[in-house]
Amino acid sequence: MLKWLRQLSSPKDSFTKELYPIIGFIPNNIEFYHQAFCHSSIGLQTYGNNERLEFLGDSILNSVITEYLFHKMPNKNEGVLTDIRSKIVSRKTLNTLAKKIKLDTLVQTNLGDKMPSSVYGNAFEALIAAIYLDKGAEFCKEFIIKKIIEPHFCLNELETEISSYKKHFIHWAQKNNTNYSFKLLSETGQAHNKNFEIGLFLKDENIATACAGSKKKAEEAAAKKACQALTI
Amino acid sequence: MLKWLRQLSSPKDSFTKELYPIIGFIPNNIEFYHQAFCHSSIGLQTYGNNERLEFLGDSILNSVITEYLFHKMPNKNEGVLTDIRSKIVSRKTLNTLAKKIKLDTLVQTNLGDKMPSSVYGNAFEALIAAIYLDKGAEFCKEFIIKKIIEPHFCLNELETEISSYKKHFIHWAQKNNTNYSFKLLSETGQAHNKNFEIGLFLKDENIATACAGSKKKAEEAAAKKACQALTI
Repeated sequence: MLKWLRQLSSPKDSFTKELYPIIGFIPNNIEFYHQAFCHSSIGLQTYGNNERLEFLGDSILNSVITEYLFHKMPNKNEGVLTDIRSKIVSRKTLNTLAKKIKLDTLVQTNLGDKMPSSVYGNAFEALIAAIYLDKGAEFCKEFIIKKIIEPHFCLNELETEISSYKKHFIHWAQKNNTNYSFKLLSETGQAHNKNFEIGLFLKDENIATACAGSKKKAEEAAAKKACQALTI
Repeated sequence: MLKWLRQLSSPKDSFTKELYPIIGFIPNNIEFYHQAFCHSSIGLQTYGNNERLEFLGDSILNSVITEYLFHKMPNKNEGVLTDIRSKIVSRKTLNTLAKKIKLDTLVQTNLGDKMPSSVYGNAFEALIAAIYLDKGAEFCKEFIIKKIIEPHFCLNELETEISSYKKHFIHWAQKNNTNYSFKLLSETGQAHNKNFEIGLFLKDENIATACAGSKKKAEEAAAKKACQALTI
């Protein structure tokens, strides 16, 4: 503790100072953490970039969440558990979470304005691997449960949350033996700036229409409108 | 040990007798293992079916293999590690492995002759979860490394093994800036017994042709012929 207080008082340790409020403990080996926040676009990588750590962290995160769900929801089948897990570890969720816990301020890149959000989610996974390598499996598991899952996710909400309205609509239609189809109504604009208009039909009736820059997004938007209109 | 020898001498314990040569240790709680080998098609499931265990075992297996590769191949990038891991945990590999270690004799199903091979790979994943729950994380990790990875896989061979000739061919074509295309030459047969003839063209020259029951398989076969002909 004294050693760490001395480190904090040194101006050289701005990285450790910034890191502590995020992780809540004093690292044994700070090099893992430097590596975790170093994107491959950085030219001079003193400790290497975070791609291998991301590979390791992704699987550690996945297995800790899997085991957590397995024990916390003993009566749910593997389909429900898989669905909840995929909502927690989705690229979008991890990117948002990384920003929420302020990892974005620590990430080093050379991407300038062209930074995709995935850089943050990847750094988060790399941080998990850094903690695992630095403090061991049990400590890392505890960190993921106490600092990530429990404060940021509500399992009951995740269970009922609709991650894809298209899937949700199709599930409803199949359950009710109802024929449906997504039809492309129009396609306008230039190659790199297309606009797709998709109609969702129940039997022959158009129940929702939506436009977007990709067919996938327009279908999702049309399905959302249909789910809302039909209160599915 | 004496307790287990007594159990072995009892005719009731044919399951334990069959299980021991496969896992090489005496379980603390045999119920996990009964559950691991019970397919959902079984009507009377005394210990439940193996679907939740499979969900857990899959992620444990994945994370142990990931960590193993991370440490064993410190100079390989995450792309190479991901590729090797996917070869080890592929459905096909796990199904074959499950039969190799004779898990198939223990699996209980009600599927009769319609048994897909995936039943065995899934039971293998469920067995991993049973070991994890029964004997703990460290024991299970050791089991996966010493009884599965090291006796059954050679990392150097896996690194050079071509898992998809189509991918391998496309990679070669892109690297050499060569235009290629897979073209459907003919489609014959009835709906459930189709035969697709695919030609692989380099610029306009047909360099390989193959037939199969699906376009995907025919493309893979044509790519394999092309790779062999061009010694790629």
